[in-house]
Amino acid sequence: MIRINENFKALSENYLFSEIARKIDAYKAINPNADVISLGIGDVTEPLCESVIKAIHSAADEMADRATFKGYAPECGYDFLKIAILENDYLARGISLSSDEIFINDGAKSSLGHFGDILSVDNIVAVSDPVYPVYIDTNVMEGRAGQNLPDGRRSNIVYLECPREKEFTAQLPNRRADVIYLCSPNNPTGSVLNREQLSAWVEYAKKHKSIILFDSAYEAYISDPAIPHSIYEIEGAKEVAAEFRSFSKTAGFTGMRCGYTIVPEALAAYGSNDAAVSLNALWRRHQSTKFNGTAYIVQRAAEAVYSKQGKQQIAGTIAYYMNNAKTILEGLKYAGFKAYGGVNAPYIWLEIPRNMNSWTFFDKLLNECQVVGTPGVGFGPSGEGYFRLTAFAKAENVEKAMERIKQWKM
Amino acid sequence: MIRINENFKALSENYLFSEIARKIDAYKAINPNADVISLGIGDVTEPLCESVIKAIHSAADEMADRATFKGYAPECGYDFLKIAILENDYLARGISLSSDEIFINDGAKSSLGHFGDILSVDNIVAVSDPVYPVYIDTNVMEGRAGQNLPDGRRSNIVYLECPREKEFTAQLPNRRADVIYLCSPNNPTGSVLNREQLSAWVEYAKKHKSIILFDSAYEAYISDPAIPHSIYEIEGAKEVAAEFRSFSKTAGFTGMRCGYTIVPEALAAYGSNDAAVSLNALWRRHQSTKFNGTAYIVQRAAEAVYSKQGKQQIAGTIAYYMNNAKTILEGLKYAGFKAYGGVNAPYIWLEIPRNMNSWTFFDKLLNECQVVGTPGVGFGPSGEGYFRLTAFAKAENVEKAMERIKQWKM
Repeated sequence: MIRINENFKALSENYLFSEIARKIDAYKAINPNADVISLGIGDVTEPLCESVIKAIHSAADEMADRATFKGYAPECGYDFLKIAILENDYLARGISLSSDEIFINDGAKSSLGHFGDILSVDNIVAVSDPVYPVYIDTNVMEGRAGQNLPDGRRSNIVYLECPREKEFTAQLPNRRADVIYLCSPNNPTGSVLNREQLSAWVEYAKKHKSIILFDSAYEAYISDPAIPHSIYEIEGAKEVAAEFRSFSKTAGFTGMRCGYTIVPEALAAYGSNDAAVSLNALWRRHQSTKFNGTAYIVQRAAEAVYSKQGKQQIAGTIAYYMNNAKTILEGLKYAGFKAYGGVNAPYIWLEIPRNMNSWTFFDKLLNECQVVGTPGVGFGPSGEGYFRLTAFAKAENVEKAMERIKQWKM
Repeated sequence: MIRINENFKALSENYLFSEIARKIDAYKAINPNADVISLGIGDVTEPLCESVIKAIHSAADEMADRATFKGYAPECGYDFLKIAILENDYLARGISLSSDEIFINDGAKSSLGHFGDILSVDNIVAVSDPVYPVYIDTNVMEGRAGQNLPDGRRSNIVYLECPREKEFTAQLPNRRADVIYLCSPNNPTGSVLNREQLSAWVEYAKKHKSIILFDSAYEAYISDPAIPHSIYEIEGAKEVAAEFRSFSKTAGFTGMRCGYTIVPEALAAYGSNDAAVSLNALWRRHQSTKFNGTAYIVQRAAEAVYSKQGKQQIAGTIAYYMNNAKTILEGLKYAGFKAYGGVNAPYIWLEIPRNMNSWTFFDKLLNECQVVGTPGVGFGPSGEGYFRLTAFAKAENVEKAMERIKQWKM
């Protein structure tokens, strides 16, 4: 008799974005002429840049010609893209890597989601709270989360405190943690880990023989030159960290699907006999068995992000979004709100006044300003009392939304 | 201390194609002017058809314009592609499905590889022998395979006999099997399951509450009108089978990455309390958590496969490959070999004479004819004594290769 993976039963239904959509639909049904502005979803809105479009057309033409047609791509990526990544994202920051340490994929979510497959189910997982829900859900599926607790937490997950006084950065745990998810710049809080904080994490991981899964999907939004873009800017990080990057937010690739994972040769985990095993070899085996490469035209499109024109063009788009972030931060300040993030990240983390809960605030903002955001509680119990706004929107809409909020008598 | 998934230690290194490449390189080093022809790899060689190329260009232009730009795709696929699949691949064969039963992905390998994630590790898995190695390796990773046996088999896997007298079709097991991988048209043997055989499998699965994972990636190559293209042509199959399809071989998409999985609402597995659970809901949760959709331009490209011109164009390419298959079969017959497949599949399964083993035959064919194929033993112990040739090559090379084999004094 065929049996299911029982761990799936312990998943919470992810109602967050469907509940938001339902509430918007209900509001629009009663107010058909309302001009509802969404600052809620973490998805880009600006088109792909010209260099990328040119690369897609050119790669498509190659696929039309028998002499230049490409079949299966190498499962872990074409060298042309790995070399562009290596030169621009690593060598330029003084980090040396071999091309075998770079794994091209169809986006950070897939690889973050599957990376646990190469690790024992007995490892203890640590995540920040609030958190991107995929880190927890994938570990629930694999049986690492334990029992569901009444507050929505899981008995076997270590939740890292992210106190407001520490600008919402994840603090070292006082319990053992084998696998630590760190996201900097952070979704949802917009906080960043500085060199000192990252060094403390690397030191922790070395001391406890833990591994850090470093999600830096938003690194292109860092404006402060002192903030590391890669965890490998920290001495010794190659021995304890894998890094997950994406073209989604860097270059508007959410609908294109391309990212990459760095798994250094020096990154080890341990077998039952305590012998060190190369995670690079395990991840290569995983990807070559359960993945069949990223589309050639998509890899050529990603390569174009690193061309001289491509770099200028994506810098323009990022500046556009970050100008939105500035508009949001200034508007919120004018309206008397406390807000965080938005300087090194496209996310603004708003503190809801008067102990109002985040769904009530959502309803009020929608009904009174016709502006949509994301209730903080959707990212975990510690997100209650906060609200996420994103800079991914048309500038004119952001300005309009902030004008309404500035005049709002909440 | 971070621990690995110990199951990975039980994986066999997959030397097959790297060993083939090594032997070719060694031969070419000694014979630099040799004209080596490969009929070894299962990858397409003809370019994408005109309709597909047009769709890529058009979708790229949409991505360049803010008004038509597309961000995240729906995780389980765009309706425009699901509807094209539904109408052409299912309704046209009298099979009704809802669009929620169709999951667009980045190719059959990923979804076949990950489908086990939603199933208990205690299920007993059955595969044919010889077999596409991914079915076994993914189950080894997940801990379903048991011990490695001296003959290269695994103690917990049920190997389905595929006797020559039964045209290499997988026979019902006499042991319990909960998850049954069936591939028709078959890689590597080129055999197909007819309606009666498929019906027997559906009946078996119903009786034993098993599930069939039906890999029909090569269905476009079926020439015999009596052979089912979909397992859902069999009454009752929706209750016991998921179907895995791909545009890779149908439309030359190996470098484009698009496929789809059918998980009917009626397909159930059982929880520990013996209650039926919808695998459709579990797979949806899996895909929305560990996958972020297939690229918009790739889905538009796949949609174009179903346009009137697209259908004509891909039919032309398939006819081209199947003419190669005919050339190979006729050449082998002329040369006195027994060969199978090649009529409803792009693979030809050659019986090696004189009890020669398949690596020796590989060496002989390379050295004496400068032709490359795949040793049958690479697909499992029962592949020993056989050799796979593929129809994916330029017609002029296939003809040249067969002329050499016809004149060969083996």
